[in-house]
Amino acid sequence: MNKKDKILIIGAGLCGSLLALRLAQRGYKVEVYESRPDLRKVDISAGRSINLALSDRGLKALRLCGMEEKTRKICIPMYGRLIHDKEGNTFSSNYSGRENEYINSISRGDLNAILLDEAEKHENVNIHFNKKCKKVEIEKNIAHFKDYETKEEFPVIADVIFGADGAGSSLRKSYISERKFLFSYSQNYLNHGYKELEIPANKQGNHQISKDHLHIWPRGDFMLIALPNMDGSFTVTLFLSYDEGKYNFENLTSEEKITEFFEKEFPDALSLIPNIKEEFINNPTGALGTVKCSPWYYQNKTLLIGDAAHAIVPFYGQGMNASFEDVFVLDEILCHFEPFDKLKTGSSREIFDWKTVFKAYQKARKKDTDAIADLAIDNFHEMKDHVANPLFKEKRKIEMDLEKHFPMQYFSKYSLVTFKENMGYKKAMDRGRAQDKALLNLISGDDISTSLDMTKEELEIVLKKVIKETNEILKEDKIAGL
Amino acid sequence: MNKKDKILIIGAGLCGSLLALRLAQRGYKVEVYESRPDLRKVDISAGRSINLALSDRGLKALRLCGMEEKTRKICIPMYGRLIHDKEGNTFSSNYSGRENEYINSISRGDLNAILLDEAEKHENVNIHFNKKCKKVEIEKNIAHFKDYETKEEFPVIADVIFGADGAGSSLRKSYISERKFLFSYSQNYLNHGYKELEIPANKQGNHQISKDHLHIWPRGDFMLIALPNMDGSFTVTLFLSYDEGKYNFENLTSEEKITEFFEKEFPDALSLIPNIKEEFINNPTGALGTVKCSPWYYQNKTLLIGDAAHAIVPFYGQGMNASFEDVFVLDEILCHFEPFDKLKTGSSREIFDWKTVFKAYQKARKKDTDAIADLAIDNFHEMKDHVANPLFKEKRKIEMDLEKHFPMQYFSKYSLVTFKENMGYKKAMDRGRAQDKALLNLISGDDISTSLDMTKEELEIVLKKVIKETNEILKEDKIAGL
Repeated sequence: MNKKDKILIIGAGLCGSLLALRLAQRGYKVEVYESRPDLRKVDISAGRSINLALSDRGLKALRLCGMEEKTRKICIPMYGRLIHDKEGNTFSSNYSGRENEYINSISRGDLNAILLDEAEKHENVNIHFNKKCKKVEIEKNIAHFKDYETKEEFPVIADVIFGADGAGSSLRKSYISERKFLFSYSQNYLNHGYKELEIPANKQGNHQISKDHLHIWPRGDFMLIALPNMDGSFTVTLFLSYDEGKYNFENLTSEEKITEFFEKEFPDALSLIPNIKEEFINNPTGALGTVKCSPWYYQNKTLLIGDAAHAIVPFYGQGMNASFEDVFVLDEILCHFEPFDKLKTGSSREIFDWKTVFKAYQKARKKDTDAIADLAIDNFHEMKDHVANPLFKEKRKIEMDLEKHFPMQYFSKYSLVTFKENMGYKKAMDRGRAQDKALLNLISGDDISTSLDMTKEELEIVLKKVIKETNEILKEDKIAGL
Repeated sequence: MNKKDKILIIGAGLCGSLLALRLAQRGYKVEVYESRPDLRKVDISAGRSINLALSDRGLKALRLCGMEEKTRKICIPMYGRLIHDKEGNTFSSNYSGRENEYINSISRGDLNAILLDEAEKHENVNIHFNKKCKKVEIEKNIAHFKDYETKEEFPVIADVIFGADGAGSSLRKSYISERKFLFSYSQNYLNHGYKELEIPANKQGNHQISKDHLHIWPRGDFMLIALPNMDGSFTVTLFLSYDEGKYNFENLTSEEKITEFFEKEFPDALSLIPNIKEEFINNPTGALGTVKCSPWYYQNKTLLIGDAAHAIVPFYGQGMNASFEDVFVLDEILCHFEPFDKLKTGSSREIFDWKTVFKAYQKARKKDTDAIADLAIDNFHEMKDHVANPLFKEKRKIEMDLEKHFPMQYFSKYSLVTFKENMGYKKAMDRGRAQDKALLNLISGDDISTSLDMTKEELEIVLKKVIKETNEILKEDKIAGL
């Protein structure tokens, strides 16, 4: 570790640009190579607005880099889910019983742009666009790029290479193809794909449905969701099986069948999506995959970060947040080791090198990114199905009451994952799952009162039972794991 | 599906040869290509005897093919674990409280040989050795082979191709490289590798330690095990971390250090392994990986089976058994669909094709092979660590008593997995894990008596509590999963 080290970051997406910014702030020399054109100059999404949910873990990392305020300006707060049934009735389900806990709809492109702008303000950062990484020679620390404009191929040598090149990471592929070490790797696809559609703004440029919610049309085996954009439109996403069920992506091939499907399942949404047929036929069907791997690093040379290390499905709204939190955790590790490095004694120079940093980073981080990957799959089932289940609704009702009346004592699984940004995902998952299990079993066994309007005293009894049962579950799991 | 279909099986190992035998018995025309030489003619293990544990699921499949009797003749029954501590003290722990429940040590080579002999008795089977599959064009049903003797490459076209080509399956690699469909895939390595050593027979050609046991030297983070061979020797396997702990494969590089390690950790074993230094240095260190993937089939053309579809770590002694059970389950599916096929009406011809068989097979089988993969990892921790844990030992003691006195009512997780060959691995895992959790929590909470000599009446009370608690756990898990 040396501030003179030449650092190469592959990818200037959300993670790569935040990482570049943070390393530049720490004084490192950073070169960034991105395969796509500069999204601030070219509209690469071709008119499609892709939005994401930004929440407290992402904001924590943005705050570290001094980017919170600028980011907040392009955020649309979403305070809960608005659930639409087949008859067009809606009911809302807040994300938290505490005030000021909400998630934010944000444009991927706009956020990426302000991060690139900020990174480029630093003299020690250079960002190169239209340069596609073809492979990395991990033993030699050489990345090979192709320039999409000149068609030329050229190598870049660096002291350290970060692969922030997303779910299809070429650094990760090089780990697999070079076979220099035992690389554990998984790619798991859901049987569902997704397709984006649009609810445009009304004539006044305003949102046609509540912009304060994430909208869900849960239908058990599939669902539609919608997130608001700043221009008054909503980006709508259909999650549907490729080949199972009466309607699926393989058989929805005619305009008639598409209309029939939406008329039957999502009549209220259909009336808001004027170009449904064109969009359904022309927009691509995307796959939903989870990638896990280990180790993320090779010696003191390379590190995978963000989606390149852990791509997840979108259902917890945590993909970007987890990648930003990667940068936060890596920064903590650097804070820990850099002072030792400055001592520059013969032995410490060797001990506190990049390998030490990478190893400590993976040890601190891997269990948490594994957890959010699993939580995201859980939430797929929750969103498309459970949100409409009476027992689940009862649980959420109690949780909102507990959070409202005992804001310092009760945090639902959703709150632990989304708003407790200083608790790791793994701990949030373990505690959250045990708590859900406790609550669901207490409700179904009639062990707690679930009357509509409980007094604070009654709620306190519920709280104590839930905490006791949750701790019991955690204790029993621990004993069973010996 | 047609008895005139030309079936190609890649691989004549344990799974490939049993599959060839069974398909031949069902009347199919089968061509088998194997990369290695004929192990009945060439000693390919170069003096190393590799043995495996054969148990009831494997025997069930062998019975189906009329091979049980021949197999039993080359089996050495192992009735339990014999656990060795550092001082050379031993204690035994039976695999079951029921009589006649035991596992068998068997030579991989000998078993493979009798299966090849039996398969070749059928006119409709041809086995070709020294033919290595390089890749499969899955769209065209063409497998490409290289002849290791003539060095020539040649294609084989078939109506259906089975990949029984093991953990490094070339058919599976072709699924990945051809990218014709979304292929979920994982390879996960343990941080431990393994190395084989040998305890030779004594001068009289007899076993030097009990041949009725699987021997374990559990040391928490690593372990040594030994299985008996027919010639009086034992094959010993060291399972040790590559790079963690005081002693590991990376730092055990000198004869002095190897001896120091064994003197300190396995003094009784050391005295029985005369060629330890040569063997340790010359024998390869093997990796321990788990492979899962999905789908196993491509259209009506190809199917992965055995280790090619689901390679697992060896700690439950179920790798071969699971592969043999694959053949049993596939046979059941064929039994179900073949009669329809014989009707040969226009529409049924299309419905009951190989794709229908493959899809039904994977639906029936995948959850079970996923389960045994996870159980095998559990058992790694059990064998190297838990077997020496007082709470765990108490649990096993009670389980042996329960199985002995209530042989029709109680089955430990080990028994469900190993001896209940008609219950799928998934069900065995779910029930077995819940039961372990119930027992461990009842013992640690002093909710059941664990006195040394319980009367049958006292044991019956224990049994009832365990069953009640197990069912409660399963019910609560179900509610929590909504």
